[in-house]
Formats: sequence, structure tokens, C-alpha cells
Amino acid sequence: MNNFIFQNTTKLVFGKGQIAKLKDLIPTEKKIMLTFGGGSVKRNGIYEQVTAALKGHNFIEFWGIEPNPTVETLRKAIAEGKEKGIDFLLAVGGGSVLDGTKLVAAGICYDGDAWDIVLKGQADDSIPFGSVMTLPATGSEMNTTGVISRQETQEKYGFNNRYPEFSILDPEATYSLPAKQVANGLADVYVHIMEQYMTTPGQSRVMDRWAEGLLLTIHEIAPKIKENQHDYDTMADFMLSATMALNDFIRMGITQDWATHMIGHEITALHGIDHGASLAIVLNGTLKELKEQKRGKLLQYAERIFNITQGGEDERIEKALTKTEEFFRSLGLATRLSEVGIGDDTINAIAEKFNKSGVAYGENRNVTGDVAKAILLQVK
Amino acid sequence: MNNFIFQNTTKLVFGKGQIAKLKDLIPTEKKIMLTFGGGSVKRNGIYEQVTAALKGHNFIEFWGIEPNPTVETLRKAIAEGKEKGIDFLLAVGGGSVLDGTKLVAAGICYDGDAWDIVLKGQADDSIPFGSVMTLPATGSEMNTTGVISRQETQEKYGFNNRYPEFSILDPEATYSLPAKQVANGLADVYVHIMEQYMTTPGQSRVMDRWAEGLLLTIHEIAPKIKENQHDYDTMADFMLSATMALNDFIRMGITQDWATHMIGHEITALHGIDHGASLAIVLNGTLKELKEQKRGKLLQYAERIFNITQGGEDERIEKALTKTEEFFRSLGLATRLSEVGIGDDTINAIAEKFNKSGVAYGENRNVTGDVAKAILLQVK
Repeated sequence: MNNFIFQNTTKLVFGKGQIAKLKDLIPTEKKIMLTFGGGSVKRNGIYEQVTAALKGHNFIEFWGIEPNPTVETLRKAIAEGKEKGIDFLLAVGGGSVLDGTKLVAAGICYDGDAWDIVLKGQADDSIPFGSVMTLPATGSEMNTTGVISRQETQEKYGFNNRYPEFSILDPEATYSLPAKQVANGLADVYVHIMEQYMTTPGQSRVMDRWAEGLLLTIHEIAPKIKENQHDYDTMADFMLSATMALNDFIRMGITQDWATHMIGHEITALHGIDHGASLAIVLNGTLKELKEQKRGKLLQYAERIFNITQGGEDERIEKALTKTEEFFRSLGLATRLSEVGIGDDTINAIAEKFNKSGVAYGENRNVTGDVAKAILLQVK
Repeated sequence: MNNFIFQNTTKLVFGKGQIAKLKDLIPTEKKIMLTFGGGSVKRNGIYEQVTAALKGHNFIEFWGIEPNPTVETLRKAIAEGKEKGIDFLLAVGGGSVLDGTKLVAAGICYDGDAWDIVLKGQADDSIPFGSVMTLPATGSEMNTTGVISRQETQEKYGFNNRYPEFSILDPEATYSLPAKQVANGLADVYVHIMEQYMTTPGQSRVMDRWAEGLLLTIHEIAPKIKENQHDYDTMADFMLSATMALNDFIRMGITQDWATHMIGHEITALHGIDHGASLAIVLNGTLKELKEQKRGKLLQYAERIFNITQGGEDERIEKALTKTEEFFRSLGLATRLSEVGIGDDTINAIAEKFNKSGVAYGENRNVTGDVAKAILLQVK
């Protein structure tokens, strides 16, 4: 096990009716900006619950943070926040709203252009922020990361700010999510876990078991959610899995991959494909292309997640790869680039960009542009 | 899943050579009291590492916090802390040292007798404290609880303070632990997990999987530790399991039991039996006596921990109970009261005390004195 430092300070406020707690979670002297996406929270009653809970607080509203939030939109929120002396942000929506809000929180404390913060990768300063999370997917509600897009240049990168002060998660908020968002969310959560799990075996038994516990949970709940999106306990497990998948709890003292995400971000930046949907394609390519490097962990994954114990090593790995692809297809997601209209041009553009940057990804830092190309060709 | 609020602020500093980080973890302006047990940290080099790291800091030393720390000893530390204006405590040792330190930290801020704080169950105020943990067992390094004994009255109760500011866990510190402490520690960790897991099934798939992941880890590492107490990765998993077993991570939104601990505390208070050793006996009685109440979870435990899937329900449960008792015996621990010289007198005394208190324990609050007696008779 590698040395590590772990400290996650976010207060998780989880359950039915918990949005009412907002009243006591934000001091009344704060000048709050509520940040929102496109308006679904007005249709599912969340907006009403939030504004009712904040009666007597001083708040303004900023609408229109889009999926894959863009710095172009966030600059407007930052300008308004600076002008009005905002000193607390409350993101109400999915991971994109919160990711964007993390940049707004840092941008309000920064004199230059907010894109500088994204490129630097770490905010130096930030006003505090919290969230009411309506979509289980990104884990943004309990981590420091935000992923921001820049339309002008078709770029998409992650950066780090501080942890949210609190995040309120009410599973009932997920009842009205469109099926596509649920599928994307499940894929996103699954790949988050895999990015931390599917590396080298034997680093930490505890971390392995916890990652496997989340993977098994996702496999168990995915078909149940498809059947009935209103079962409280199932949706609660979906929300809890999403948060636990990316809040540092399953990556203590171990190496991580994240090549699938880096490639997926490029696909989203170039083609506007949903984040979860991009991962559902790329992960299969990563596992196939890096089969030898990940052999030990793939065999463990085959046994512990799919109960595949018969046959030779290669056969067991092939079965596990098939089962993985079948899982994404069961969500209704594409697993081949051709299905979403992506061909050689994009593959070559991504390879070139990676090669040009000189950075390589993955647990062994060997996913160069050429390897990224090979990964994408596996799922062409 | 029940509603819950989770926030654990402790900074976990984990790994080889991390004790040197103390230098930056405690501000130099603090007046520190280091708290110790009986002196093993002088033999294994930890004391030297700690004092070297704190060179330039202002600290005094308090020695002699015993296993099952007593308020009688802690009162002395509190008096000295008040007199010398101590405003930071650093516990160096096992869970008992840290448990006691949590009471010292609260006692320094309290005008009356420290036993009041224990009886009240929650400290109103406290100076901050951290730990260098040398013994994986209690989880005290990342939770708010301390368990304190009072010799004068043969009482032993838990109370809550705040979370430690930080805890440093260096697996190498465990290499020199006496075999008995390792066995007690493994038993303690196992029962902590069981107290949160072995209740009603179907509350949270995630929490079930994570508790099971820790149980499987303990089963896997226990024989390896017996063979070789100097394997870094194995001892790291032992330390990490102990912390994760009792830091609120596996009890989000679920009911808990803790009857085994309440009965175990009485046995320790009356007979001075080691805490872990008392639990290794009582748990078997709890599972046997409450078999019907815990039927669903026992069947899940049988399948997921011991791979017992053949036979009728009662048969599978019996096999799991046998396997559980065998596990504690494999640690070299007793699993019957008669083996440690405890008979009817003590059983009746505990039953009477529980009945008199009018409080009942367990997830269904039905472990009265009579039920506690039945539990103990199961393991007579």
C-alpha cells in the first residue's frame, strides 16, 4: 500500500425531506447565489423546496449552467457574483451544475480569467459552497473536482477546488430523472469505480473489496431501476453508490488509471456526446487494449463480480469483458464509436492531441496518443 | 435506508515514516501534552520518532494511561493540563490511550469532575487532539468515542467528544505488538463490523457490501498475520480495516446493534478481561440467542462470508455460527465464559444491572437484563 493522506470534510445530509435543513446549513448573514441548470428543478419541486427552506436568507439566482459546463457561461456567473458581493454558492442540480459552481466559487476570488484556474488545475482561493444534488453520477457532491469545457477551443479539463461544505441528497429527487440521464449516471459511476479499481492487484484488500462492493451494487440495482424508478431504497443505494464511488473513500493508498476519462473528455469536447455515454464506449476499449497490463486485476474482477471461475485465464478475461460490455448495453448505451457516428477522423485527432501534449495517462503513465488510438480502434 | 448525516473531519495520515509529519500537523504556538500508556512506545522507537518530529514544539509528557483507561488516572492528566495551560493533546499509543485522551481533552474545558462528562455521554467543549496510533483495534483514531472505566464503582461506559484533528497510522508500528494484542485487536475489529452489520438485511446494499468487504479482509489477513507480523501490506490492511470498521463509513442510514459491546464492557469492568477477548466470547452468544431476529442477515453472512449455500436455512446458520466461533478460536481466544473463570455469579450480576437500569440494547432495543443473561448462558 502506498502512503496517503485522507481528509474529506463534506457534510453529507442524506434522505427524505432533508432539503429543509438548508435553513440551518447556511448562515443567514451570507449573500448566496443559487446556481441551476436548465430548469428541471422547477418541474420536480426541488426549486420550491430550496427557496422555501431559504426564506429569510439573502439569495439571488443564476440559471443556465449546461451539461459539460462551459467557462463561457460560468464567466457570467463570476462577474455577477463579484458585482453583488456573493460569499456563498449553492448548486442545485446535477454534477455539471456543481462542477461549474466550483469554478464560479474560485473565480469570484480570482482577478484574471477563470480558464486560468482550470489550466492551473488547482484553485488558490474560493468562497465556500454547498449543493442540493438531484442526479447520482459525478460524485462532485463529495469531492474537490470540477470538469469544465471551453467551447471556443473545444477543450475539456478537470481542476480541483476545496470540498463542498455540505451536500444534500434526497433520493426522491431522482424519481423524475429521464431514463437517459439514469443510464448515463450508472455508466459514469461504474467507470469511476473501475478507474480506481482496474489497475494492479494486491495493493489493498480493503480498497479492492470496497470497489467490488460498489460494482456489485450497481449490477444489482441497474435492472431494478429500469423496472421501477420510484423504489426509495433502490434509488437511495444508487445515490449513495455515486457519492462513495468518487469521494476518495475507495482510493486510499492505491494507484489509479483515469485514461478512460481523459479519452472520454476528448470525445465529449469534439462531438458533444454525453459524458457517461462516452465512458460506456471507451472503457471497453481500454480493458481490451490493456488486457495484459491489467491481467491480474481482470481475473479478480471476473471472479468477484461475475463469478467466472471456470476456464483458462484468457477465456475468463474474455468472458468478463463481454459481461462488461453487456452491462453497458443493458443500460441502453452504445459501446461502439460507429454507433454514435465517430470514425477515424476523431480517433486520429485525439491521438494527435495526446501525442502533442506529451502527457501519458493510466496507472503506468503509458497511455500516449498512440495507445489512445489503439484503445479507440478496439471499439470502432 | 434511514435518513442520516455524515461528516468525519479527521485527517488520516497513513504510511511509512509519516510520524515525521507531526512537525506540520500541530501549530508551533500550541502547548502540547503528549499522552502515553505503559511504555511500549519507548521500546519500539515510536517515542523517539514523535519527540524528534516535535523538536521546537512546546510539549510535556503524561505517562500511564492504562488499558481500559480509568477516570482515576485521567483526572490527574486533566489537573496537570489545566495547571499548565495545555491547549493540544497528542495521544501516542493504542485505542485506550486515545480514548482516555478524549476525556482529558474535554475535562480540561470542564469545571466539575470528568466522570460527569462520561455519564452525560457527550462533551460540551474540548481542546483539539490528535493521535499517533500504534495498535489497530478500537477505531478511536477516526471517531468521536471514548470508553472510560471507573475503578471505584466497577463501571465502564462510552461517551462522545469531537473527531481527532488528525491520526497518524504507520503500519510498521504494529510489527512489535505482542501476539495477544494482535488477537484482541482482530477480535475487536471483527465485532465492531458485526455490531453494525448483523441486524436486518435490505437496509443498504452499499453498507452491507462494505461491511462484508471488511469481514472478508479480516478472515484473509488473520492467518497471514499469525505467520508473519512484519509483512507491510498485510499489517497496512489490518490498520486500515480497524479504522474503517468504526469511523461511521459502514453505518450510513442503517440500524446498529452494540448489545455485544454493552455486555462485554460489563465483563471487563467486573473481571478485567481484555476488551477484545470479552467480545470474542459474547458475540457467539448474541448470534445464537438472537438467531431468529437476525435470521435474514445470518443467512446473507453465511453465503457472502463463508460461501455456505447448501442445506436448509437452520443448517446454514448453524454452520456460519460454528465458523464464527472457529475464527475467534483460530486467533487463540476463548469463546466460553468458563474458560476465563466466569460463572453464574457474574452472569446474574450483569442481568441484574441491566434490568435495574431499565435500558435495553440491540437494534430492536430488546436486549434487557433477561436477554443478556440468556446470551451469556449460550456461551457459558
